[in-house]
Amino acid sequence: MLGRYITAVRTAGPLVHNITNYVTVNDVANVILACGGSPIMSDEPEDVTDITSICGGLNLNIGTLNQRSIEGMFRAGKQANALKHPILLDPVGAGASRLRTETAVRLMDELDLSVIRGNISEIKTLALGSGTTKGVDADVADAVTEETLQEAVAFAKTFARQADSIVAITGAIDLVTDGARCYVIRNGRPEMGRITGTGCQLSGMMTAFVVANPEHKLEAAAAAVCTMGLAGEIGWSRMQKGDGNSTYRNRIIDAVYHMDEKTLSKGANYEVR
Amino acid sequence: MLGRYITAVRTAGPLVHNITNYVTVNDVANVILACGGSPIMSDEPEDVTDITSICGGLNLNIGTLNQRSIEGMFRAGKQANALKHPILLDPVGAGASRLRTETAVRLMDELDLSVIRGNISEIKTLALGSGTTKGVDADVADAVTEETLQEAVAFAKTFARQADSIVAITGAIDLVTDGARCYVIRNGRPEMGRITGTGCQLSGMMTAFVVANPEHKLEAAAAAVCTMGLAGEIGWSRMQKGDGNSTYRNRIIDAVYHMDEKTLSKGANYEVR
Amino acid sequence: MLGRYITAVRTAGPLVHNITNYVTVNDVANVILACGGSPIMSDEPEDVTDITSICGGLNLNIGTLNQRSIEGMFRAGKQANALKHPILLDPVGAGASRLRTETAVRLMDELDLSVIRGNISEIKTLALGSGTTKGVDADVADAVTEETLQEAVAFAKTFARQADSIVAITGAIDLVTDGARCYVIRNGRPEMGRITGTGCQLSGMMTAFVVANPEHKLEAAAAAVCTMGLAGEIGWSRMQKGDGNSTYRNRIIDAVYHMDEKTLSKGANYEVR
Repeated sequence: MLGRYITAVRTAGPLVHNITNYVTVNDVANVILACGGSPIMSDEPEDVTDITSICGGLNLNIGTLNQRSIEGMFRAGKQANALKHPILLDPVGAGASRLRTETAVRLMDELDLSVIRGNISEIKTLALGSGTTKGVDADVADAVTEETLQEAVAFAKTFARQADSIVAITGAIDLVTDGARCYVIRNGRPEMGRITGTGCQLSGMMTAFVVANPEHKLEAAAAAVCTMGLAGEIGWSRMQKGDGNSTYRNRIIDAVYHMDEKTLSKGANYEVR
Repeated sequence: MLGRYITAVRTAGPLVHNITNYVTVNDVANVILACGGSPIMSDEPEDVTDITSICGGLNLNIGTLNQRSIEGMFRAGKQANALKHPILLDPVGAGASRLRTETAVRLMDELDLSVIRGNISEIKTLALGSGTTKGVDADVADAVTEETLQEAVAFAKTFARQADSIVAITGAIDLVTDGARCYVIRNGRPEMGRITGTGCQLSGMMTAFVVANPEHKLEAAAAAVCTMGLAGEIGWSRMQKGDGNSTYRNRIIDAVYHMDEKTLSKGANYEVR
Repeated sequence: MLGRYITAVRTAGPLVHNITNYVTVNDVANVILACGGSPIMSDEPEDVTDITSICGGLNLNIGTLNQRSIEGMFRAGKQANALKHPILLDPVGAGASRLRTETAVRLMDELDLSVIRGNISEIKTLALGSGTTKGVDADVADAVTEETLQEAVAFAKTFARQADSIVAITGAIDLVTDGARCYVIRNGRPEMGRITGTGCQLSGMMTAFVVANPEHKLEAAAAAVCTMGLAGEIGWSRMQKGDGNSTYRNRIIDAVYHMDEKTLSKGANYEVR
């Protein structure tokens, strides 16, 4: 039952260092608070080593990367590795520009990542681009559906083994795998894609879950995916006539705020393959 | 009837590259999603050329400009021009500082802009400051009201011809002109001025409208203004006792999310001069 | 009665220059608008001198400081001092990193600050770190409670005198002092700590209050604290079943939007020591 992993977050109150984009950063901070963690943001290279040292984990998101924040990501990442803090990489837009692809691949190559979370397109880009993943067959479909599920699970497992990291591929169906087992998750609603940053929010929250559950990182990452998706379902059930994506954003974070062990365990819709 | 132009946005789903300020960027992203477009943000000079290449249009907003993002704006703009993508300039704060005025004028001079959108004060600053607009009589009143409407329309048309761009001047009464015809729009509510970034949101949304309606840029820009103003009216009608500017912000984006062709055509309040 | 000080803000409509973090900047802008002020954000060193010159006050927040914005803070601060505009310093994270502590201390040392607002931990860091505050006994408890109140008031007064600034320490109980008198304020709710940036919002709003009440800076700063806390109480009373921290954020800003002299005077819960 996955509910226990959010209880662990609320009990531990993990401090999460985020180097993330300025588009969705406020929602990332509020969703980390909603699930029971505490966020700190810092991207200045002269600042990040100290900040990451007082935190429990590091969330790297390249959504609006720049030369300064890239340098900050590497410095923070090396310190997090030295302290054995988990690092999550969200390779936003990998494949959309050379700088994003190269930065994401370098972060993979030079840091020891605990989790890589992206959509199928971003993850395929990393699988193709990284020397460590040579041989991965990234020729999977561009969406994870019931029809493409089997090959997508196989791809995710292979990439996770070669990257030596938990890999979370989110979309209509979400996959979370450590290379051996793969959680196949069917929570969430398609309307979540009409809100900016639900993926970024999930990455922030997932970092908090992983930090608070060091002995169960895979389950914790899967629980974070279920929490976000289930919050999307609960939030949608509270929508009134006339409410749109801006209100939906608030309702999802509100639902995370009220998520408890029982609700999560009961509402989490997954199988393990 | 202007309603068709939002239908075109929802059908085409244009990808809009935004180099915009960090104050209102989240709302800009959500309103672009609400109207049927997709936003991408990137301001790093090494990143912008690739990003703008995969988009359909470029929204330049100087609200929190810095040396890096200014360089990003010029690089992205030159690439957008090379690819014949429409560019919108939102000269936030032109006239309030030398850097803002000079940057906005340089962007006008060095790029081929499809639309310039600002308030009357910002547009007057550009008319006075740009060599391409020599001879424009910018000695119009500082607000577009029924009393000053005739001279404001004349000013807007002259500036649009000399800038060779659509010009949108927003305020209590909104003007959108290509130099020949001028849409005079009376949608919206004064309380929208108590929310940060309704102008920035409009610029993002207008870029999506123009990208999705390449043969009807003027009408599309006017339709975006009507959409925002009408959403302000609809959002206001849904306000409850005790709701203030933060909730109003959500209600406006929600109303854009639900805006359809019929509602827009019926609610758009404009004349053409 | 503190209500008059928000009336002064609504009457004067002070323009506030903010160099603040990108996490909570949108909420800072909206809360300044909600209380009757107007926000401008600018952190580029080449831009800040002009921008601060057209404003009435300056709000410096080091929450996501970087080398560029630090330079911007000093340039803006020197210009604000030259023009005798009030400056508020919010030393976010002072004590959490060397760069933050040193920057906050340098801002204290090199600028003439009107107000310093932070939590007890940040203020203690400044008291220990600044040469101007040598001799301040910062060995107070890490939370201001009824039990530690007396020593905390003494600490705040001593630090305010040595820093020659109003000092606001916010927490479960808030203290606002000019070194002679200390407002002890018991407004607010603990759930406000589950929203990112209520402290940043207060700093922005407090700057507007101080600018609009130049002859009563201490009372104005205290009134801003009461406004924020009371808005937290009113916002909470409007929460529905299922609402969480994201909706609460909106409700608090909404409550500031509707705050009037009578409500504030009646609801402000304070004593002067």
